[in-house]
Amino acid sequence: MSESAEERWAGWGDPAAAVSLPPSIAALLEALGVRPAAPSVDVADVRVPESRLPDEVRQALAAVVGAANVLTGPEARARHGGGKSTADLVRQRAGDAAGAPDAVIYPGGHDEVVAVLRACTERRIAVVPFGGGTSVVGGVGPSLSGRPRIALDLRRLDRLVELDEVSRTATFEAGVRAPRAEEILAARGFTLGHVPQSYEYASLGGFAATRSSGQASAGYGRFDDMVVALTVATPVGTVHTGRAPASAAGPDLRQLFLGSEGALGVVTSLTVRLRPQPVSRRYEGWRFESFEAGALAVRRLAQDGPRPAVVRLSDEYESALGPAAGGCLLVLGYDDGTDADAVLAADGGTALGPEPGQRWAAERFAAPYLRDALLDAGAYAETLETAAFWSRLPALYAQVRAALLDSLDRALVLCHISHVYETGASLYFTVVVAQGDDPVGAWQRAKARASDAILAAGGTISHHHGVGTEHRDWYAREIGPLGVDALRAVKAVLDPQGIMNPEVLIPD
Amino acid sequence: MSESAEERWAGWGDPAAAVSLPPSIAALLEALGVRPAAPSVDVADVRVPESRLPDEVRQALAAVVGAANVLTGPEARARHGGGKSTADLVRQRAGDAAGAPDAVIYPGGHDEVVAVLRACTERRIAVVPFGGGTSVVGGVGPSLSGRPRIALDLRRLDRLVELDEVSRTATFEAGVRAPRAEEILAARGFTLGHVPQSYEYASLGGFAATRSSGQASAGYGRFDDMVVALTVATPVGTVHTGRAPASAAGPDLRQLFLGSEGALGVVTSLTVRLRPQPVSRRYEGWRFESFEAGALAVRRLAQDGPRPAVVRLSDEYESALGPAAGGCLLVLGYDDGTDADAVLAADGGTALGPEPGQRWAAERFAAPYLRDALLDAGAYAETLETAAFWSRLPALYAQVRAALLDSLDRALVLCHISHVYETGASLYFTVVVAQGDDPVGAWQRAKARASDAILAAGGTISHHHGVGTEHRDWYAREIGPLGVDALRAVKAVLDPQGIMNPEVLIPD
Repeated sequence: MSESAEERWAGWGDPAAAVSLPPSIAALLEALGVRPAAPSVDVADVRVPESRLPDEVRQALAAVVGAANVLTGPEARARHGGGKSTADLVRQRAGDAAGAPDAVIYPGGHDEVVAVLRACTERRIAVVPFGGGTSVVGGVGPSLSGRPRIALDLRRLDRLVELDEVSRTATFEAGVRAPRAEEILAARGFTLGHVPQSYEYASLGGFAATRSSGQASAGYGRFDDMVVALTVATPVGTVHTGRAPASAAGPDLRQLFLGSEGALGVVTSLTVRLRPQPVSRRYEGWRFESFEAGALAVRRLAQDGPRPAVVRLSDEYESALGPAAGGCLLVLGYDDGTDADAVLAADGGTALGPEPGQRWAAERFAAPYLRDALLDAGAYAETLETAAFWSRLPALYAQVRAALLDSLDRALVLCHISHVYETGASLYFTVVVAQGDDPVGAWQRAKARASDAILAAGGTISHHHGVGTEHRDWYAREIGPLGVDALRAVKAVLDPQGIMNPEVLIPD
Repeated sequence: MSESAEERWAGWGDPAAAVSLPPSIAALLEALGVRPAAPSVDVADVRVPESRLPDEVRQALAAVVGAANVLTGPEARARHGGGKSTADLVRQRAGDAAGAPDAVIYPGGHDEVVAVLRACTERRIAVVPFGGGTSVVGGVGPSLSGRPRIALDLRRLDRLVELDEVSRTATFEAGVRAPRAEEILAARGFTLGHVPQSYEYASLGGFAATRSSGQASAGYGRFDDMVVALTVATPVGTVHTGRAPASAAGPDLRQLFLGSEGALGVVTSLTVRLRPQPVSRRYEGWRFESFEAGALAVRRLAQDGPRPAVVRLSDEYESALGPAAGGCLLVLGYDDGTDADAVLAADGGTALGPEPGQRWAAERFAAPYLRDALLDAGAYAETLETAAFWSRLPALYAQVRAALLDSLDRALVLCHISHVYETGASLYFTVVVAQGDDPVGAWQRAKARASDAILAAGGTISHHHGVGTEHRDWYAREIGPLGVDALRAVKAVLDPQGIMNPEVLIPD
C-alpha cells in the first residue's frame, strides 16, 4: 500500500483546488486584527515519534494483511495522526505529529479486520478505524495517551457487494468513499442522496460510525435513516444486524453501532436504502426579514411541506455578505418535487431567483478550502453545531452565540439552520477569529463555553459531527451516568481489552 | 384501587360489544370439523395460587404507593396473569391463573415507580410492568418460573405533562391509553395517528416498550418513529434520553429502551411527535388479480408515492370471502393527501369504490371480538407476523404459509401486507383451526415451525407484536450471541438483581 499524494497535508482536499481569499474577506480579516501566519511545515519535515510497535506485532499483522499493507513510515503515520478540525490543521502546519499511530494497517476484507482485531486484543494494541479521515472532533486522533496503537485504514474495503433493485438497497464495503458510491449507483439509476460537506473524501463506514447528516437531509434523511443493515467486526467476533426495514424484535441494535465511532467495533459493510436519481434538480434563494421570520417559514416546510431536499437558512450575520444582505438568505434545493413558493410567500419571503441557490450549490464543498486560505492569512476558522426541538431553538441560538462572542476577542460568529425535522432543527455556527498566540487553547476555551451553553439550553452536543474526543465530557453529561454505564457495559463485552478507539465517545 | 369490570374476562374488550359469528364463518367452521367449546369459567371461579408475597414486602410497597394501591385479591391477580394471546384466553377460559403475579401495584407517578423498583431490588422480587395488558406474545405473563413477582399496573400514570405546539410534541405519562391520548390531542387539533388493533386498550408506554406499529403506519410511521424522548425508571435510577429530533452524539439510547419490554426498566413518560388532525379521511378498496400483482403495486406506492396512510393488501385466501373474491383486496385509507389512482390503475388495479374500505374501517377493531366468538364455537384463531426486504417477501410468504399448513390439521391460513416501507414490508398471518384436544400445544408446535421458516427466509421474528416469552429463542437466533451478550450486559448494569420482567426478551 502506498499513500496517494492527492490529499493536501495540513489542509483539505486536492492541492490543485486551493483557493485564495476574496478581497471582501481579506478586508474583513484586517478589521479583525488578523496578521498572516507562518507557512505550513512540509509533510516530509514533520516530527513523528518513533514507532512503538514491537517487531513481533508488526510481523503478526503482516501475516494477516500482507507486509505491503503494514506501513510504519513517518508520512503514512503523520497522515493518520488526526482528522480535519482546525486544531488538527494548526498542529499539522506546525509540523507536530506527536499523536500519530505507530503503524497504519490496510486490511483487504472483513475477515482480515476480524483477524487484526483478534491479534491486537491479544497484544492490547489500540486500534483506530480510519475511513476518509475527515473527523473534526478528534474521532481518529491525535492520541492523547501514550498507549501503542494502529490506524486501521479501510480504503481497500471498496466493493459494491450487492445491489437489490427490488428492495432498493445496496450493500457496500465500508471503505467506499461517497463519490465512488454515487458513481456506482448512478450507473444503475440510483442515488443515496447523502451529501455532507465532507462528501469528497468521507467513506460510507464513517458516515455510519458518526451518524452523518448531509446537506439534502430534508429530502433524503440522515445517514442513520438510510442504513438498514450493518456488519460489524469486533474483537470477539462478528455482529450482523438488520433483517427488515423495521422490527419489533427488541431494542434496535443497528442504533447501537450507528454513532459508535469505532469504539465498539469496525463497521466493515453496510446495506443502505437507495432512491432513484432525480429527473430534475434546481436551487433557488429566498430572502426573509429576519432569522426568526425565516425560521418560522422553514419550520412550516418541515412540518407541513412541501419539503425541498436542501433547506438552509442563514442568520443575519452569515447573510450579510450575500444577496439577502439586511435580511436572511434561505437556500432551497429541489430534487424533483413540488415547489414551496406559496408557503414561503405567505410567510413573508421574497424570491431571489435561482442565482443564490446555484452559487451555494457550486460552492457547497468550498468551505474547507476557504478555511485553508484563512489559516494561511492568520485567521482561525472553526465550526460547531447542535440541534434541539423548535421551541428551544431561539434561546439555544442566542445563548451559544453569546457564549462564543463573550469568550473570543473580535470574533465573527455566523450561523445557519441546515437540517430541519418536524419537531426541531440543527444550528450550525461558524467562527472566524485571529489566530493570536495560542489559537488552539483559545478555541478550546470558547468551545467549552459554547458546549456548556448548548447543554444548558437543551440542545444535543452534536447533530452531525459526532463525539470524538472533543465532545466526550459533554456527551457524558448529555446521556447521564446510567447511559455511560450502559455503553461501558456493552464495550466491555464486545471489546474486553478496551482496544477499540479507546479515547473517543465513552469517558474513562 | 379497584379493578373495573369493563373488560371481559378470558376475552377482549367490552362484554357488551361481543359479537356472534356470521353464518358464512359458522358454515366454514363446520367444514373444518370445529365443534363448540366448553364455556368460559367465570372470573370469580378461577384458580389463583396463594400470594407468595411476604407481609414485610407488602408493607414496604404499601408505604410507597399507599395500601389502597396494593392488591393481592384473586381477581386483580388473575386479570394481570397474562395478556391477550389465544393461548392466554384458552387458559383463562379453563379457569387457570397459575402464572398470576403475587400482587398488583398501582404507582401514582415516576418517583413511586423508582421507589417500588428499589424496594423490589432489595428483596429480589420480580416486577412486570403492565400497561393495557394487550400483549399477544407473553409480554406480561403468565410466569413460567416460581419466582415471586408483582405486576406494576401503570394506569394511574395518566396525565398529559406538556403539549408543545411549536415543536409539535406532547409529553404523556406512560399509562395513558391510546383513545384518551387522542381525545386530549384532538381537543388541541392534533393526532398521533397511531392506531394498532389493540388501540382501544393499549397504553402509550406499552407502544414504546414493544415498538408497536399501527394500521396507518404508511402515513404516520411506526410508534418508534414518533418517540422523541423517554423517561425510564430502572432499579438503579432514572434515565432521560432524547434532547433533539436527531443527534450524532453516539449510539441512540432511545432505541435501546424502545422495544425493551420492561426488561431494562419502566418507561414512565414519553414525548411523542404530533401531526395536525387531518381535514378529510376516506377509505376505498381496489382489486388485483393476484397477491403478487397487488404487492408490486403497494411497493410502488411505498417507494415512489403517493402514499396513503393505510395500505393493506390481503392475499387470495383472506380476500376469498370479500368483494375482491377471485383476486386480492387492497384497502387504502387517506388522511388528506393525494390519491394513488393513476399508479394503481397502471399496475392493473380495479377500483372497487369506498364501500370495501369503509367496511374495513368500521370493523378495524373487531377481530379480537370475533376471535372470542370463534373460541366459543370451538375454533382456535391466532396470528403471527414478520417483515423483510421486498426481494425476500415472496419466498418468506410461501415458506411460512407452507410451514403452517403442514403442521396444522385442516387449518385456514390467511395473510395480508399491512405495513409498507421503501425497502420492505410486513406479512401478517391469521390461522383458524379446530381447538382439538390440545389447542395450545398444537399451536406452539405450528408456531415454532413457522418461526423457523421466518428466520430461514430472512425475516424478522416480529414486526410489531414484540418478543415476550414466545419469540425469545428465535430473537436470540436473530440477533446472535454477541447481540444477546450486549443486551445482557446492559441489563446487568441497569437491573443488577435481574428483577425487571425477567422472563421476556433476553434468554437466560
